[in-house]
Amino acid sequence: MISLDQANIIITAALDHGRTANFKPLTVVVLDAGGHAIALQRADGASTLRPEIATGKAASALALGVSSRAIGVMAADRPTFVAALAALAPKGIVPAAGGVIVVDAAGITIGAVGVTGDTSDNDEAAALAGITAARLKAQG
Amino acid sequence: MISLDQANIIITAALDHGRTANFKPLTVVVLDAGGHAIALQRADGASTLRPEIATGKAASALALGVSSRAIGVMAADRPTFVAALAALAPKGIVPAAGGVIVVDAAGITIGAVGVTGDTSDNDEAAALAGITAARLKAQG
Amino acid sequence: MISLDQANIIITAALDHGRTANFKPLTVVVLDAGGHAIALQRADGASTLRPEIATGKAASALALGVSSRAIGVMAADRPTFVAALAALAPKGIVPAAGGVIVVDAAGITIGAVGVTGDTSDNDEAAALAGITAARLKAQG
Amino acid sequence: MISLDQANIIITAALDHGRTANFKPLTVVVLDAGGHAIALQRADGASTLRPEIATGKAASALALGVSSRAIGVMAADRPTFVAALAALAPKGIVPAAGGVIVVDAAGITIGAVGVTGDTSDNDEAAALAGITAARLKAQG
Repeated sequence: MISLDQANIIITAALDHGRTANFKPLTVVVLDAGGHAIALQRADGASTLRPEIATGKAASALALGVSSRAIGVMAADRPTFVAALAALAPKGIVPAAGGVIVVDAAGITIGAVGVTGDTSDNDEAAALAGITAARLKAQG
Repeated sequence: MISLDQANIIITAALDHGRTANFKPLTVVVLDAGGHAIALQRADGASTLRPEIATGKAASALALGVSSRAIGVMAADRPTFVAALAALAPKGIVPAAGGVIVVDAAGITIGAVGVTGDTSDNDEAAALAGITAARLKAQG
Repeated sequence: MISLDQANIIITAALDHGRTANFKPLTVVVLDAGGHAIALQRADGASTLRPEIATGKAASALALGVSSRAIGVMAADRPTFVAALAALAPKGIVPAAGGVIVVDAAGITIGAVGVTGDTSDNDEAAALAGITAARLKAQG
Repeated sequence: MISLDQANIIITAALDHGRTANFKPLTVVVLDAGGHAIALQRADGASTLRPEIATGKAASALALGVSSRAIGVMAADRPTFVAALAALAPKGIVPAAGGVIVVDAAGITIGAVGVTGDTSDNDEAAALAGITAARLKAQG
C-alpha cells in the first residue's frame, strides 16, 4: 500500500514539477488500490472540477488496469465502449493521459496517481515525477 | 463576489440586448464562483430545458476555467474526453459558446454568466453585454 | 401561465417581505406549471444549496398538487412513502412549508413559488406576499 | 479565499491534534466556499468512505450555512426534511459534528473544513484545531 506520507511526497513533487516547468496550476490526487483517496491538493487558481478530473483519471486507470493514456487510445478506437464503461464507474472514466498506476517491486498494483491542469502529456509527466520522488514505480 | 444587485443588472442587460437585436427568447443565469445560482430569468416563450442549458454553460466554464466557447473547440478535437467530463460535473458540460467567466480587477474568477436561446455566438454576445452593463469584466 | 414580468414581481416582493420582517437572506424561485424555472434570486449571504431547496419546494408542490406544507404533514404520517416519491422526482421532494401553488381565476394551476432561508413558516409567508403583490392567487 | 498553503496547515494541525489526543485515524478535507476540494488527507488505517464523509460534512455546512453539528440537531427534529435535502446536494448532507464553516475577518464564508474518523465531537475539535493553527476563524 501507499502510506499517507508517501502520498504527500508524490503530490508535493508533482506540484513542484509543474511549477518548475511553468505548467498551469495542477491538481494531484493519490488513490489506494481500491480507488479511494489518500490525499489530494489543488493549486491556487485551478478551476472547480479539477479534483473530480484528477480522481477520474486515477480511478479509470485502476478500474481498467492500464494508464488513462491507454484508455484515451482505447476511446479513440472504441468510443461507445468507453462511454458505456463510464456509466458503470462511480468516479467516471477519463480517457486522457495523467492517470498512472503505481506498483510495488513485484509489480503488484498499490494505488494510482491522477493529475490535471495542463496538457495531458504534461499532467502525466508531473504524475511520473511524483512517483519517482517517492521511490515508487509506475506500471510499465 | 458578484452581488444579487449586480447579477440582476447583468441579466436585465443581456435580455435587453437579445430583444433589441431580435434574438429568440433568451434565458440568462449568473452563478457565483463555486457554480451556485445567484439569479436566473427565462424570457416568455423560451423552452423548458433552457434554465439547465444556461446553467450548464456557465457551470462548464467554471468547472474547466475557460469559456464554454473554448470547451466547444475542445469537444470538436476530443469528443470522448469532453463527454467523459460531463459525467463528473453535477450540472453537466455544455460545449457551446454562451458561458463566460467573470473576473475581478486582479483577474480572479468571481462567477460566470450563461445564456441560451439563440445561436451560440448571439448567446455569448448577450452574456458579454450583460457583464459590461454591470461594469464587470469577462475573462480575457 | 405566469409571465417573466409577473415572476419578477413575485420575487421582488417576497425578498422585500423578508428584508422588512428581518428574516435571514431568502432565495425565491418561480416555476411554470411544468416545474421549469421562470426566475430565481438568491439574496447576498444565502448559503449554496438554497436555489435547489427553493426549487425543490416549488417543484414538490406541483408534483403532488398540494403545498409543500401539506407534504410536510404527509411526511410526518408516512415518511417512507414521501422518501420513495423523492427518488422519482428529478428536483426532489422537500417536505416543508415554503412551496406554494399559484392558480388562475378558475383555480387552474399556472405555476408555483418556492422560498427558503428562514423558518418554513416565514418562508411561506414571503411566498404568499410575493403572489399577492403580483395580483395572483395561491391555491386554496 | 483559503489558499492551498493555508489548507495544508489546517489539515496537518487537525491530523496532529488527532494523533496527540489518541483519536482513531482521521480524514480531513478543506473545501473552498463553493464546496470544491482544495486539499484532503486520509490517515493510514482510516476506512474507504472517509474522504466522502469528511467532504459531505464540510459540503453540508456550506450548503445550509451552518455547522454540520447544527444539521445534526435539525435532523433529530425533522428527519424526513434533512433526508430530502440530501437528495438535492451533489455531495450529500451528513448530519453530524465535524463540518465547520471558515469565515474571514468580516464574517464572510471562505470555505469549510470536514473531519471524520473518531466521535463527532472529537472530529469537530480536530477541525477547530486546524482552523486555529492557520490563524483563521470558525463561523460563530
